[in-house]
Amino acid sequence: MEKLRATGRFLRYSPRKSLFDRRLNPNSENSIPNSASGYGHGFGEQCRDFQLYNDHNRKRNVQTCFGFYGHQGKTARDCIEKGLLEDTRRIQHRCFGSLAEKVQRDPSFSTLSSDDISYFKGILGEKNVVQDEERLAIANTDWMHKYKGSSKLLLQPQTTEEVSQILKYCNSRSLAVVPQGGNTGLVGGSVPVFDEVVINMSLMNNVISFDKVSGILVCEAGCILENLITFLDNQGFIMPLDLGAKGSCQIGGNISTNAGGLRLVRYGSLHGTVLGLEVVLANGDILDMLGTLRKDNTGYDLKHLFIGSEGSLGIVTKVSILTPPKLFSVNVAFLACQDYFSCQKLLVEAKGKLGEILSAFEFLDSKALDLVLNHLDGVRNPLPPTIHNFYVLIETTGSDETYDRQKLEAFLLHAMEGGLISDGVLAQDMNQASAFWYLREGVPEALMKAGAVYKYDLSLPVEKMYDLVDEMRTRLGDSANVVGYGHLGDGNLHLNISTPQYDDRTLAQIEPFVYEWTSAHRGSISAEHGLGLMKANKIFYSKPTATVKLMTSIKKMLDPKGILNPYKVLPHSIDSHS
Amino acid sequence: MEKLRATGRFLRYSPRKSLFDRRLNPNSENSIPNSASGYGHGFGEQCRDFQLYNDHNRKRNVQTCFGFYGHQGKTARDCIEKGLLEDTRRIQHRCFGSLAEKVQRDPSFSTLSSDDISYFKGILGEKNVVQDEERLAIANTDWMHKYKGSSKLLLQPQTTEEVSQILKYCNSRSLAVVPQGGNTGLVGGSVPVFDEVVINMSLMNNVISFDKVSGILVCEAGCILENLITFLDNQGFIMPLDLGAKGSCQIGGNISTNAGGLRLVRYGSLHGTVLGLEVVLANGDILDMLGTLRKDNTGYDLKHLFIGSEGSLGIVTKVSILTPPKLFSVNVAFLACQDYFSCQKLLVEAKGKLGEILSAFEFLDSKALDLVLNHLDGVRNPLPPTIHNFYVLIETTGSDETYDRQKLEAFLLHAMEGGLISDGVLAQDMNQASAFWYLREGVPEALMKAGAVYKYDLSLPVEKMYDLVDEMRTRLGDSANVVGYGHLGDGNLHLNISTPQYDDRTLAQIEPFVYEWTSAHRGSISAEHGLGLMKANKIFYSKPTATVKLMTSIKKMLDPKGILNPYKVLPHSIDSHS
Repeated sequence: MEKLRATGRFLRYSPRKSLFDRRLNPNSENSIPNSASGYGHGFGEQCRDFQLYNDHNRKRNVQTCFGFYGHQGKTARDCIEKGLLEDTRRIQHRCFGSLAEKVQRDPSFSTLSSDDISYFKGILGEKNVVQDEERLAIANTDWMHKYKGSSKLLLQPQTTEEVSQILKYCNSRSLAVVPQGGNTGLVGGSVPVFDEVVINMSLMNNVISFDKVSGILVCEAGCILENLITFLDNQGFIMPLDLGAKGSCQIGGNISTNAGGLRLVRYGSLHGTVLGLEVVLANGDILDMLGTLRKDNTGYDLKHLFIGSEGSLGIVTKVSILTPPKLFSVNVAFLACQDYFSCQKLLVEAKGKLGEILSAFEFLDSKALDLVLNHLDGVRNPLPPTIHNFYVLIETTGSDETYDRQKLEAFLLHAMEGGLISDGVLAQDMNQASAFWYLREGVPEALMKAGAVYKYDLSLPVEKMYDLVDEMRTRLGDSANVVGYGHLGDGNLHLNISTPQYDDRTLAQIEPFVYEWTSAHRGSISAEHGLGLMKANKIFYSKPTATVKLMTSIKKMLDPKGILNPYKVLPHSIDSHS
Repeated sequence: MEKLRATGRFLRYSPRKSLFDRRLNPNSENSIPNSASGYGHGFGEQCRDFQLYNDHNRKRNVQTCFGFYGHQGKTARDCIEKGLLEDTRRIQHRCFGSLAEKVQRDPSFSTLSSDDISYFKGILGEKNVVQDEERLAIANTDWMHKYKGSSKLLLQPQTTEEVSQILKYCNSRSLAVVPQGGNTGLVGGSVPVFDEVVINMSLMNNVISFDKVSGILVCEAGCILENLITFLDNQGFIMPLDLGAKGSCQIGGNISTNAGGLRLVRYGSLHGTVLGLEVVLANGDILDMLGTLRKDNTGYDLKHLFIGSEGSLGIVTKVSILTPPKLFSVNVAFLACQDYFSCQKLLVEAKGKLGEILSAFEFLDSKALDLVLNHLDGVRNPLPPTIHNFYVLIETTGSDETYDRQKLEAFLLHAMEGGLISDGVLAQDMNQASAFWYLREGVPEALMKAGAVYKYDLSLPVEKMYDLVDEMRTRLGDSANVVGYGHLGDGNLHLNISTPQYDDRTLAQIEPFVYEWTSAHRGSISAEHGLGLMKANKIFYSKPTATVKLMTSIKKMLDPKGILNPYKVLPHSIDSHS
């Protein structure tokens, strides 16, 4: 590391004495000696700060137990029982944008009778036919408290055969159903709209097999993602997907919504990693596609129809998934860039130079970082207080600590010399790495604390992505704080517009403009959240009519009575677009 | 590398002086000093041998220009024009097993009229409506000369709109069609069975766009894979798939057959890397799913229906695909293992220890290697003549020459010390790497030269995979040479049974046993070759009736008259299995 030292811009100190081992800042006016003690831009209290980070992380886990952040295996119910629900509601019970959906109940659906209840008790037993109001209240509400159904019944099947019997009966009786996993979705996809029967998958939570030679895991759909991660960790493997909601979300729900998450840039989408599914169709037929083979070209690969169809074509009951071996060397750098073009160039360089060890490339703009610094407790900017326009988080994952570190350092030095990075820090341990990640992952929480927020999850060509943020700022002027962050490596922008209070005039300035702009640039109006109820009628912004018509035909073929998760995913009428 | 040297088992020499820089053999009786000159187990002529390898490679490129091996961009037609066709036929015109398919022409299809020809000339112009007998002879025959159709017409559209017009017309006239790319398939999927109109995609061969930031390539379906590889190479990227047929096969065909190939273990299947498709349906409707986004959760992801459906649901006209950055450091080791269990354990170790740089893990048994050594010119076993039961080829691809090399060497040393490897060599340059690869890739060619061959492409759980080879040997006794090789990392076994001549009694001993055995172990009867005509009726060995019924319903929905690639993929009757 002689070359790095020679720049005179790096700090190195013992992790126990202070926080940031190494600083990259060729432009800093403070040329800082390479010592453990001597650096002077507001980091005098790092140790305490990091303690606060840790305290904060625990707090965060509790506060957001319903949704997008891990909470160490707690279910929503655990939180309620511990009296945490009200606190959660205070923070989250706000309006999150998007024009209200006006939906009429489909009159072809039956309403629940006492005979139905008796029938279900006959199949599932008393305790798995839930009519308790408190439990139904949770099942009827999404974690953002934006959507609220009025279901009177929640069923908890324990086997595929029970799911099959439930659906066969509901189909014959024209009873609409909502499959529900961890209920962590953001688009109203996993809660009833009216009185649909909730089919809760939580009790189907067994690991069926794991093959260490091939890395193939077979499990039931109700397994909580975090539990699978822990199970695999003990075997020396990891799940190919990871997301903030892992403590609540279930693998069946992940697959039904084609969850993206933090590892997509490295391990690809679920369409690539899911090897097989068992699915129950609307009429109760069990479709056994539960292969455990990496290669199988025998006919149409039907499982893909169910990945990302949000429970509207069938209920996923079992899953076979390819899991990568666990790699032990993780490095995280938090960097500042002067402009968006530098972020893009840095991404290209990182793909080429870090190659096989690059595992995340996230970005946030200065307004996003400001929100995190202003609204979350105990968070500190690891960089000096100079204002930078953009921040990038790079993570590498590999199998050799020393080599990976050297490689990342060499890359950062090169990028710094080339002017792509204005400043930066490299985490020295997992606590620091977590703290850096929290600067990026804390943005949604900070936004929710800041006021009303209009949230958009968009995919766009990387080079156009930030233009939308700029245009939105011009459009809204001082009336709103427009924030951009997301998975730059995946071309996924989380556009968030924060205002003190929710109002329809602001919304009218945002929508449909945001969808039209995205559509005009061939983007996706839902990169990873799905369409659910929120965007079912907006599908035409991202998909041509002919394609939507074919989706509708497939839905009709597989679920002629439309009992599976009605009012979601597909538009309520296709005629106006024909 | 002190540790390696300390074993006293390694050879090192200058590549110009001799061939194999480094040998690993802790069990060898010849303890060989680490010098450039002193090693003595039959490698005195290495330089000449490698020269021969190179000569041979050139020869191979010519001989197999029709099919599975690259031929540097030559088309089948080029080969014919250069008088090479007869030579190719002499080698390949043998019987390749599988019970003959008895198919009746579907009487609902029309026969071609002069009005039809006039109509097509009106759309495509004279020269792209081909009736020339010589060209039709090529289009009517698969590269193995096993299947032969009698089409009288080949159409060469240049645009999606032309494909649309052709299909709209054919659908209205009930004229059956066969989409044809490079015609390199092994299961009779890309040639007419009777008089179907051939729709040749070769003229739709333009690269539409390439985005260096995201690595996303958009191109027409008729682009030859090798041309795309070359194009990307100049941009610092690679295709996520590579296969022997790259010199002839087209990306549209690759996608329609869900080609696996050599990079699957590293970059995953096309379901993960293909981001978008444009497809023309049987009725001429153009389905625009040509997204260029890594994430897009807006409705059902319909493109997956067309990946691997062998042209029976629509004709792929354009492709959007994610391409990884090119990594410059490639290492190849050729290793010997005592038993199949060691191969499996080595795979597990390699996944864990080589982690992110592992890019291939292939195996062949001693009978496969013997065939290569006995039937291909100028090939030498880089290992001493001790008989080993199994051979493994490991390839790593990374971004750092020195590090990757050290990592692989450390891994090999560890595996050797643990007894997993009996012997091994590490390639010192690309020529040696190619020569090692040829020991594995040359097996199909050697089999064809050895006599009649019954070929099976199977996916099986890795731990069971070789049991089938053993059982087949017991079953056939001395009457046949049973050979096993394939992509161990993908669980893909190429089971080949070589006999001096083809005869029905041998076949009856092999089939249906091989399919029943595969089915009983939940394997796939076609890992990567597809079903085509050859295995359409055998789909039930790998897929349950309910799943096949759903496939049939989808086929009926998208192609009610069944004009697209008839008699292929799906069984000719489903009733007997209902």
